[in-house]
Amino acid sequence: MVAAEFDQEGELVGMDGNPLQGVSFGEAAKGVVAMARFAGARGWVPATSGNFSVRLDEERAALTATGANKAELDETGVIEAEIAGPKHPRASAEAPLHLMRYRAAPDIGAIAHVHGLAATVLSRRHETAGHIRLEGWELLKAFPGIDTHEAHLDIPIVPNDQDTDRLAALVEERLTAGGPFHGYLIAGHGLYVWGRTAAETIRHMEAFDFLLTAQMHEEGAR
Amino acid sequence: MVAAEFDQEGELVGMDGNPLQGVSFGEAAKGVVAMARFAGARGWVPATSGNFSVRLDEERAALTATGANKAELDETGVIEAEIAGPKHPRASAEAPLHLMRYRAAPDIGAIAHVHGLAATVLSRRHETAGHIRLEGWELLKAFPGIDTHEAHLDIPIVPNDQDTDRLAALVEERLTAGGPFHGYLIAGHGLYVWGRTAAETIRHMEAFDFLLTAQMHEEGAR
Amino acid sequence: MVAAEFDQEGELVGMDGNPLQGVSFGEAAKGVVAMARFAGARGWVPATSGNFSVRLDEERAALTATGANKAELDETGVIEAEIAGPKHPRASAEAPLHLMRYRAAPDIGAIAHVHGLAATVLSRRHETAGHIRLEGWELLKAFPGIDTHEAHLDIPIVPNDQDTDRLAALVEERLTAGGPFHGYLIAGHGLYVWGRTAAETIRHMEAFDFLLTAQMHEEGAR
Amino acid sequence: MVAAEFDQEGELVGMDGNPLQGVSFGEAAKGVVAMARFAGARGWVPATSGNFSVRLDEERAALTATGANKAELDETGVIEAEIAGPKHPRASAEAPLHLMRYRAAPDIGAIAHVHGLAATVLSRRHETAGHIRLEGWELLKAFPGIDTHEAHLDIPIVPNDQDTDRLAALVEERLTAGGPFHGYLIAGHGLYVWGRTAAETIRHMEAFDFLLTAQMHEEGAR
Repeated sequence: MVAAEFDQEGELVGMDGNPLQGVSFGEAAKGVVAMARFAGARGWVPATSGNFSVRLDEERAALTATGANKAELDETGVIEAEIAGPKHPRASAEAPLHLMRYRAAPDIGAIAHVHGLAATVLSRRHETAGHIRLEGWELLKAFPGIDTHEAHLDIPIVPNDQDTDRLAALVEERLTAGGPFHGYLIAGHGLYVWGRTAAETIRHMEAFDFLLTAQMHEEGAR
Repeated sequence: MVAAEFDQEGELVGMDGNPLQGVSFGEAAKGVVAMARFAGARGWVPATSGNFSVRLDEERAALTATGANKAELDETGVIEAEIAGPKHPRASAEAPLHLMRYRAAPDIGAIAHVHGLAATVLSRRHETAGHIRLEGWELLKAFPGIDTHEAHLDIPIVPNDQDTDRLAALVEERLTAGGPFHGYLIAGHGLYVWGRTAAETIRHMEAFDFLLTAQMHEEGAR
Repeated sequence: MVAAEFDQEGELVGMDGNPLQGVSFGEAAKGVVAMARFAGARGWVPATSGNFSVRLDEERAALTATGANKAELDETGVIEAEIAGPKHPRASAEAPLHLMRYRAAPDIGAIAHVHGLAATVLSRRHETAGHIRLEGWELLKAFPGIDTHEAHLDIPIVPNDQDTDRLAALVEERLTAGGPFHGYLIAGHGLYVWGRTAAETIRHMEAFDFLLTAQMHEEGAR
Repeated sequence: MVAAEFDQEGELVGMDGNPLQGVSFGEAAKGVVAMARFAGARGWVPATSGNFSVRLDEERAALTATGANKAELDETGVIEAEIAGPKHPRASAEAPLHLMRYRAAPDIGAIAHVHGLAATVLSRRHETAGHIRLEGWELLKAFPGIDTHEAHLDIPIVPNDQDTDRLAALVEERLTAGGPFHGYLIAGHGLYVWGRTAAETIRHMEAFDFLLTAQMHEEGAR
């Protein structure tokens, strides 16, 4: 039986371009702004943290510039970065964590990095285990390929590292084993999450935050 | 002594039609949108989850279409479904959980399905017991037939099941024993709640969320 | 040393009338609406619960009518009640809990009844003790007569009772011993709080909610 | 590697003046209002608590007047105070805690005092230890001089004291040992936090609140 509760009839304007067919920078930037403001309204990007991107095509992505306040982002805080090229002068230090994902997975159209409370707390609590397993929750069906609650989703946890090229390489190594994955945690730092479009990535952000918050309360009762 | 704190003088426009006398699709759709936005503003429908309906008459109900973002719902995301007829092409996979309730209980005029945090967490914690008993809270008086805090309200918990026809049959079986019930939980999934009108269903949603959140905090201190 | 952080230079328009000098029904109703909407925006009046009043003079008070949705209150949901007279036909069942306070304490100008989460949870946890002691918090200075954190404030807890005349008499009995009090809890029900004006009562609502929430977190860590 | 996630490209209008070069009272008051409303929207200044200031130059600062409702502050609630002069008639009782900081540290351009929940709860829990150590969190990089999560930040905790001249002297004594510090806690009272500008102080408020909330949840699970 197909679980249709999470099927989306249409995507938000500016967020439903198929990156494999190419979207304009303007359209992509709208998706970046929409993700950033969605996260900002929920307190997931404290103190200008977090960053967001939408792929234009195989070679380029729209990406939040370093230092922009994501809760109040507009398009002046979005840059066009080359996925495999030299570092953009306004690129965030975490840009490699976006760009290496786009190189590794051609079906990824948008990426969000957020600092939610439950993600941050649980990423430290389970760092030694190396992952958090979400299991048996109906909301797992928010992720493509999961059409029953009788499933589990592992979220890898990697140790934090200020060398983001090295960190990105470690992330890609972890993501080749098992999966499919829809996001991962950096210990004491936050969540990376992606989707085919900015609209899908917003749904995945929301689903991960809900599931991790429920998990945190479930663990707290032990 | 009659406890009048929860008596409602008038219902919201578009939400107080008596379904047994019949309401128009437009009026019913307004009630569906009002319930969906109320829930969306409180974070109870993450990642396009949740669904909502208002009965038109004995044979038809207005129902959220599959995949609509309930937090931003408008009437284009509402369909007219036959209560006992064939499945509407845009009906949600959970439509049977609405329609079988309307068949079983003629005094139900509106139904809401939401994914609140406390409902989701407690539905798993108490799944083996098969119910949660709310007892002694003043806010129990938000439900019809309860006019004192010296009462209890059992919320049945059923195991989750992706076969929603089978799940709906199990729910109806559970709801015939004991009661009256004003809602039930699906384990790890969320809450179903109903009322005579959309306005009453909103009050019941709010009361269940408050009571389950208080219950979660009370249990957490044990 | 006078602790001036909580001194208020001016009160909100429509809320600073001195009830001993008399205010008009229109002015009083504005204060009732302001208190109700303040509480509604914070989720303290779920499912149309809660009620609010402002004294006009020694004999009359403006009071929320039964059944009004306090989160969206306007002046049509406010009635003029006699403090010592017969029950107004639209008076809430909890009206005696307001009116007996006005009779007992001439310096009370406004009263709010809210269902906050921490108030509801702690009122049950400490029902047997008969009170909650708040001690050592700076925010205690929000209450008149307290100008140092080296103080304590006892909040009496009375058992819930659907006979609100009897409950009001018990409350007044409890409030004559010790004090001064600025509010009390009804077990499993909620908080009653008052002040000289509606503006002061709003500050007291906010202070009690903050202090009880902090207390709940402090106890939770034991 | 420089961690650029928290670098700010530009500061908010009216909040980026360099206090060592001097800013006008009007510009400084805008910064005070922006900090106060930011805190008010997050519930960090309950019951008119909290206070905020921006330095004009070596001798003067704009400061919230006593009793103003900070959540709804406008410039009429802001006074111009002499940093080393006699007490302004409308100055808050906590003015010395602002002014002595400006005297002691010429690079401080703005100061905020807020009553967040986690700050208040943890300030009491750790009062005996005399500090809270935040360690290993990525968001520590929100503070200047910290460019890796492999760092710790100690937040001193001083006992509360209604003699704010004496309290300010104790604070300065504590802040000369160790550091650099970006804020401190008063036990059972709240947080003082500062930055070079009002915009930076807002980021520091937000970072401290997030980190202390995460810390509270981490401790709660022990």
